[in-house]
Amino acid sequence: MKQVKIFDTTLRDGEQGPGCQLSLRSKLEIAEKLDAMGVDVIEAGFPISSPGDFKAVTEICRIVKNATICALARAQKKDIDAASEALRGAKIARIQLGIGSSDIHIKHKFNSSREAILQQAFDMVAYASGLCDEVQFFAEDAGRAKDDFLVQMTDTVVEAGAKVVNLPDTNGFCTPFEYFEKISYVNKNRKYKEKAILSVHCHNDLGMATANSIAGLLAGAEQVEGTINGVGERAGNAAMEEIILTLLIKERLGLKSGVDPKYIVELSAMVASAMSNPIQANKAIVGKNAFAHSSGIHQDGVLKDRRNYEIIDPQIIGGTLPALVLSARSGRAALKDRLNALELTYLPEDFEDIYTKFLLIADQQPYVEDRDLRRLM
Amino acid sequence: MKQVKIFDTTLRDGEQGPGCQLSLRSKLEIAEKLDAMGVDVIEAGFPISSPGDFKAVTEICRIVKNATICALARAQKKDIDAASEALRGAKIARIQLGIGSSDIHIKHKFNSSREAILQQAFDMVAYASGLCDEVQFFAEDAGRAKDDFLVQMTDTVVEAGAKVVNLPDTNGFCTPFEYFEKISYVNKNRKYKEKAILSVHCHNDLGMATANSIAGLLAGAEQVEGTINGVGERAGNAAMEEIILTLLIKERLGLKSGVDPKYIVELSAMVASAMSNPIQANKAIVGKNAFAHSSGIHQDGVLKDRRNYEIIDPQIIGGTLPALVLSARSGRAALKDRLNALELTYLPEDFEDIYTKFLLIADQQPYVEDRDLRRLM
Repeated sequence: MKQVKIFDTTLRDGEQGPGCQLSLRSKLEIAEKLDAMGVDVIEAGFPISSPGDFKAVTEICRIVKNATICALARAQKKDIDAASEALRGAKIARIQLGIGSSDIHIKHKFNSSREAILQQAFDMVAYASGLCDEVQFFAEDAGRAKDDFLVQMTDTVVEAGAKVVNLPDTNGFCTPFEYFEKISYVNKNRKYKEKAILSVHCHNDLGMATANSIAGLLAGAEQVEGTINGVGERAGNAAMEEIILTLLIKERLGLKSGVDPKYIVELSAMVASAMSNPIQANKAIVGKNAFAHSSGIHQDGVLKDRRNYEIIDPQIIGGTLPALVLSARSGRAALKDRLNALELTYLPEDFEDIYTKFLLIADQQPYVEDRDLRRLM
Repeated sequence: MKQVKIFDTTLRDGEQGPGCQLSLRSKLEIAEKLDAMGVDVIEAGFPISSPGDFKAVTEICRIVKNATICALARAQKKDIDAASEALRGAKIARIQLGIGSSDIHIKHKFNSSREAILQQAFDMVAYASGLCDEVQFFAEDAGRAKDDFLVQMTDTVVEAGAKVVNLPDTNGFCTPFEYFEKISYVNKNRKYKEKAILSVHCHNDLGMATANSIAGLLAGAEQVEGTINGVGERAGNAAMEEIILTLLIKERLGLKSGVDPKYIVELSAMVASAMSNPIQANKAIVGKNAFAHSSGIHQDGVLKDRRNYEIIDPQIIGGTLPALVLSARSGRAALKDRLNALELTYLPEDFEDIYTKFLLIADQQPYVEDRDLRRLM
């Protein structure tokens, strides 16, 4: 099993989600929990962006015990200076800086040329390398960039001293097959493989961020970036809990992380609350329905053997055993199970009649509660 | 471009989500809108499950003008009889019936054998074929089933008269690469290709349902199943809006649907409200932040050219142009743009000072509103 690095950017890219701004106190609580969970890198903020964010990065460096702390910068000296200064207290300080790599970005965002962009990338990585322990470079909008140019950019920044090259699907444009091809191509054709690793960072605009992240790892990337609950700009980043659980339960992928998953439920609730950004009920892994069974077919199957409809034991992420929710789609097996649990007894020959009455109640309301059953009996 | 069939199961598998039960009136409104949007098949319910659901299927048949109406059944005569009766008013009536295909289901849910399961599948498909226009068979838990057995099951049910064979990843266990291999294998090795199409139906337990659905279509399936907002049992089904938009904007896939996307925003809001199941802000396509930009880097890029950070024009799904939200991560470009829009004038030499004061306000609150800017100026 190959171990990949987990790079959490809840506090930087996640906090960029509209309305997701965090207080200093929340940032510190979340950073502490991420550190306890064992993530390899915590991206703590974008120091040049505001005095509050600068201060947060400084304070996070003070309390985090194990993780590398990363701060974001554009490919500009003043950004890099601010990042380096904010990171001064980190055990291991990483600056992530980058610039657009797609022709759209080079032309319509920077009004520049490939040559000028490569020169700027080289110069700024070289500059940052003298100011922190390690430099990570991001080739912005790599998802829409030409693969050959990404190889050229990767070689350029590694020559300048970058230890990690992040090839983000900034706009969530790729399918897993496309992203796999892209990362494979760059990984096969780049020079200096022993000097730097590749990182994947996916956005969820088409709902494929998790699948793309796994595809990138299968293609040879050794670091994966994401956020708790998938928060972030627009439709957000890849949800870290989905990536971690996929690596954990799908042994056949041959990949693992060093993270302890038992913190996931707690961290998810902490982030949702601190960002005032509730998770939908059907969110994978951390939604309140993620492990609940409502229909009769599924409830009957779960009562016979949980493995029929459960691929994850929620206790490993710090959750509780799944619930069987009684509703109009529930069957006889679940109703019997609940009546037994409530010690409500009945004659076997009366059961069909009880089930019919149960359905009449259930057709009128989303759930049938225990008190409804007591009244019915 | 190959056109694939869109099979919406919001009213059946979607409604199975805990707490997502719909009133008859809501079901009719949603069915009417799905029909207007142009989905090929509406799965309307599971008639044997409750009198309310039986009635809903009957009423939906009455009002839907174009779509095929499908009703669910287990592989049992009483289920099939109920489905057939409820579908009597449909222009085109389809019964979907199925049985477990994985060894886990065969052994631990049905306590049966492969031979007995195949016989039951054959008998019940043959029985249903006489009672409706077309039979769809689902090989439950195909995601964890042996590929060779799926080929055998597919051939068996097509011999019995099935026109569509659905190979669901019932437990959301597959990666896109695995699901692609599975669907490809069955499609290559099955008999009677001219007699029946394959359908894909994915669940989102690991967050990969949309990517898996697209993978299944690329592997040769000609029908794709999903729900609006991705509602459904546990972490839900593949989100139909994500599938439709992927087919629409990614022309290089060579696939298209016959759906008019302009109903998506309205349908999503209708389903969320009727199910009392709010969508999270960062939900792809339909979340309130899906097209909003908060960070300075992105806002600056969008002001220069929307294509820098937007792969979808939200107006095609009936939405409005994306918002630039002012926050502590916003830059000078976005602040200038908003001040101009509000006709708040200032001397150029004062701008840096205004921006500094803006950041001090922004560090204290999630958004900076227009009234904050008026007060600041």
